Amino acid sequence: MKGDLISMNSEKYKRQYFMPPEECLDWARKEYITKAPDWCSVDLRDGNQALIIPMSLDEKVEFFKYLVKVGFKEIEVGFPAASETEYTFLRTLIEQDLIPDDVTIQVLTQAREHIIKRTFEALKGAKRAIVHVYNSTSLAQREQVFKKSKEEILKIATDGAKLLKKLADETEGNFQFEYSPESFTGTEVEYALEVCNAVLDIWKPSPDWKVIINLPVTVQLSMTHVYASQIEYMSKHMKYRDSVVLSIHPHNDRGCGVADTELALLAGADRVEGTLFGNGERTGNVDIVTVALNMYSHGVDPNLDFSNLPELTKNYERLTRMNVYERQPYSGKLVFAAFSGSHQDAIAKGMHWIDDRHPDYWSVPYLPIDPKDIGREYESDVIRINSQSGKGGIGYVLEENFGFHIPGKMREDVGYTVKDVSDKQHRELVPKDILDVFKTVYVNISSPIALKECHFIQKDGGIEAEISLEKSGVDKLYHGRGNGRLDAVSNALQRHSDLDYSIVSYQEHALTVGSNSKACSYVAIQKPNGTVVWGAGIHEDIITASVLALISAVNRIQ
Amino acid sequence: MKGDLISMNSEKYKRQYFMPPEECLDWARKEYITKAPDWCSVDLRDGNQALIIPMSLDEKVEFFKYLVKVGFKEIEVGFPAASETEYTFLRTLIEQDLIPDDVTIQVLTQAREHIIKRTFEALKGAKRAIVHVYNSTSLAQREQVFKKSKEEILKIATDGAKLLKKLADETEGNFQFEYSPESFTGTEVEYALEVCNAVLDIWKPSPDWKVIINLPVTVQLSMTHVYASQIEYMSKHMKYRDSVVLSIHPHNDRGCGVADTELALLAGADRVEGTLFGNGERTGNVDIVTVALNMYSHGVDPNLDFSNLPELTKNYERLTRMNVYERQPYSGKLVFAAFSGSHQDAIAKGMHWIDDRHPDYWSVPYLPIDPKDIGREYESDVIRINSQSGKGGIGYVLEENFGFHIPGKMREDVGYTVKDVSDKQHRELVPKDILDVFKTVYVNISSPIALKECHFIQKDGGIEAEISLEKSGVDKLYHGRGNGRLDAVSNALQRHSDLDYSIVSYQEHALTVGSNSKACSYVAIQKPNGTVVWGAGIHEDIITASVLALISAVNRIQ
Repeated sequence: MKGDLISMNSEKYKRQYFMPPEECLDWARKEYITKAPDWCSVDLRDGNQALIIPMSLDEKVEFFKYLVKVGFKEIEVGFPAASETEYTFLRTLIEQDLIPDDVTIQVLTQAREHIIKRTFEALKGAKRAIVHVYNSTSLAQREQVFKKSKEEILKIATDGAKLLKKLADETEGNFQFEYSPESFTGTEVEYALEVCNAVLDIWKPSPDWKVIINLPVTVQLSMTHVYASQIEYMSKHMKYRDSVVLSIHPHNDRGCGVADTELALLAGADRVEGTLFGNGERTGNVDIVTVALNMYSHGVDPNLDFSNLPELTKNYERLTRMNVYERQPYSGKLVFAAFSGSHQDAIAKGMHWIDDRHPDYWSVPYLPIDPKDIGREYESDVIRINSQSGKGGIGYVLEENFGFHIPGKMREDVGYTVKDVSDKQHRELVPKDILDVFKTVYVNISSPIALKECHFIQKDGGIEAEISLEKSGVDKLYHGRGNGRLDAVSNALQRHSDLDYSIVSYQEHALTVGSNSKACSYVAIQKPNGTVVWGAGIHEDIITASVLALISAVNRIQ
Repeated sequence: MKGDLISMNSEKYKRQYFMPPEECLDWARKEYITKAPDWCSVDLRDGNQALIIPMSLDEKVEFFKYLVKVGFKEIEVGFPAASETEYTFLRTLIEQDLIPDDVTIQVLTQAREHIIKRTFEALKGAKRAIVHVYNSTSLAQREQVFKKSKEEILKIATDGAKLLKKLADETEGNFQFEYSPESFTGTEVEYALEVCNAVLDIWKPSPDWKVIINLPVTVQLSMTHVYASQIEYMSKHMKYRDSVVLSIHPHNDRGCGVADTELALLAGADRVEGTLFGNGERTGNVDIVTVALNMYSHGVDPNLDFSNLPELTKNYERLTRMNVYERQPYSGKLVFAAFSGSHQDAIAKGMHWIDDRHPDYWSVPYLPIDPKDIGREYESDVIRINSQSGKGGIGYVLEENFGFHIPGKMREDVGYTVKDVSDKQHRELVPKDILDVFKTVYVNISSPIALKECHFIQKDGGIEAEISLEKSGVDKLYHGRGNGRLDAVSNALQRHSDLDYSIVSYQEHALTVGSNSKACSYVAIQKPNGTVVWGAGIHEDIITASVLALISAVNRIQ
């Protein structure tokens, strides 16, 4: 095959990132994230700009309200100087007083004079805002796009920083500043530090008036631990560090957006810019839902409310016209699904273990968090039945949905029967399908023999049974004697037929709660050759239920 | 909002993984992966078992052939003892001689006697196979599912290992062994090591007969660097290490499947089990496409051929009935797409830079690899136009698709016009749409003034022009004089109308190559109030093209 590799040639690539000039591995000695960062949603900016059809004004307003509801306290609402729609959206938020007192909006602007001026015009009347100024600093952008030297690029940043300060002083409102060396991941780390420190020297932040320095993974270029080391280096050497909120803004080109975020938080980052479900340019921004719920699964409160994630997902899909991927952690349709027999079995046992033991902590196999916490359902989201499934899952579905406590040995038999149906019909079976298969194959089977009546008398320390059956359209009466009622019926059946078997298992339970509850009975009979056959019976009367179970088994043998 | 957090309660969680007993951070000092690992596809096993509708026999055979074509040398084909379908599939591969000589199939079996025996029966006639035996070792599974002690669980592993050895000796064929402590990530690391070493003591591998020890991320429970440390600990303390292929099998519950894989490769792993596009249970297995192409982007040959990824994606989607996520790294539909103006501009400049400079290495902003390498197209996959787009992208589309080299200043004007159409029509525009907008608004505009004829004579060191125009259905003849032809026409136009403007820009180029090529001319005129208006003209004759451009601009002013 290698001969066919016409277009793939790894020699045209080299690593495009830069290592920090000293080893920065303190982060690697920390085990997990102990405190939620400041979250900033960039759904309305980076998310929106990546949509095939960007959101309309009304859609943006609705989306903004969901972000507030989830608990975001900082929301980037757009690049008002770049487009009429984003300008209008910002004005709508301000003029219609849609920004809650505890939420700060953020606006993006390039470090260019007319754009910064227009941005402050757009902000008139806002009580509070973060003005986020950026310019691109990477080697590739300097060489190819701006064709400027390091000094010239640094001057773009400091000129922008000065203008921000001037206009903020001249404009009414409470403004916080944010600076991003855009394309940070393609920038020499020491140079990025130099630019950030130059901006900080202009802004001169204080612990009472912090500024945000944001180090974006504009494009993921390195392995995730390299980014963590870069962040640690920046954090250690940044001036005014106590007065800086160190922010990150990861994208996902190498599929490591979540890992970049998490390791950078260990390395000193205080704040995360990202989107719901990882919407955003190309491979997306980091998925804040995943980072937050990862923290949650470690016992750390993420300060965001995803208790009704399915509803949030639905609204997101409607407003963005995007789909949440089926395998997206926590939010995807399939992420809690167990089709495989051994997984279903372990989950069912784990759930029972929780019910029995009431442990202090969640620890069900294959379920990193309790799906119910985020609004998912065990019944429809977790145990799903197809041809790969097994007794544990199928038994669990019949128990949880319909109250059948099927005996262990019988579960295996039912499991094979049900998954065979799925295999042959080539489809997933929903709980109702499974109930239908179970009832059709095992319960109250009345052919060739159907029970008509059944009478018992106690006599001579035993039980005598008289059962009337219909077989092939003819009514017949049988008598038998035994130690118990089921035994007597079984003997009656065997004496008047060619059947030869023994009852090897019997279980019965109330199927529903209350006085007019039905009982379900399970009977296994074994033929002389060792074959075991199961039947089940359902009836208001517990004796009749057990006789029906026996007759079902007998019918199934034939 | 926090008052509404009824179901989210982080206190019910604690971390369910275990740290290695000593600091293991050698991996963190390595920068990147320098060599491709052994790849093992588990698409037909883990991938298939996670499908809502598992693959049929024919579909599996077809999928197997694609895996071979991509270059996988180890392919897990199923759990033959667990299902009739998987048994039949394995027999089909063997009996129809579908396994190439350089490909080794792998089969999965629990460490249970009857299942192992059945597995060897299923393998009869195979020239070579990896027999992969596992049992679950995590604290949660020991307590909740198996209700067995550490010693009892270890014995399951060693009994299985012994039986494998015995049956391999008794069965014709070349068998390699693999052992997985399933749910490794929930297992005490020292205990996992003890179990693996006990299995190794039974197998006694040698450098000539290596065995595989596979340490799965059955469920992602820890941050990614913790898994790397666990792997490093295992690698450092594993017996017979030179005779062991250390394998990993990451899932993706925390969205860190790729990161787990990559860091574990730095930490000592030699081999990766995963799937195409990250198919697999719940959040999926690790996406081998992403890991391989991440390596590729660092200049390392992944030994897998993804040069026609769109075709592979299409076949995968057909056979699995799943969709590849639009934002899945490398393979997703949108992952190279740039809608935003500044990104499009940078990409367009980066592409020109490559054409001009022929650099040794790829480094186009926003494109981590050259999309063409994996069968993607710049035209349809990269520069996409909607209301967020800008002059750079729109200019690029008109240049790359239709040959228009629109002057820099005019690009801005055209950019606003085109994105306004997208904004108002609320849709993405394809290149044909953009061409239509450009032609309708700028090119050969003939109302209210239409050019009929145009004659020139050279006289007295200048040019005299006679142009016949149609205006509101009436033909008119104008005369003018100038330094050049366009100047003369312009003077003729202005003298006989109320117009007052000056020509501020003129450019022209051949639109197509060859003798009957057309020319395209771009003219900007400026009104006394400073407003600049652009027009374009297309004609076989270069003079006529420029006159048409001027008249287009004049018409647009009105």
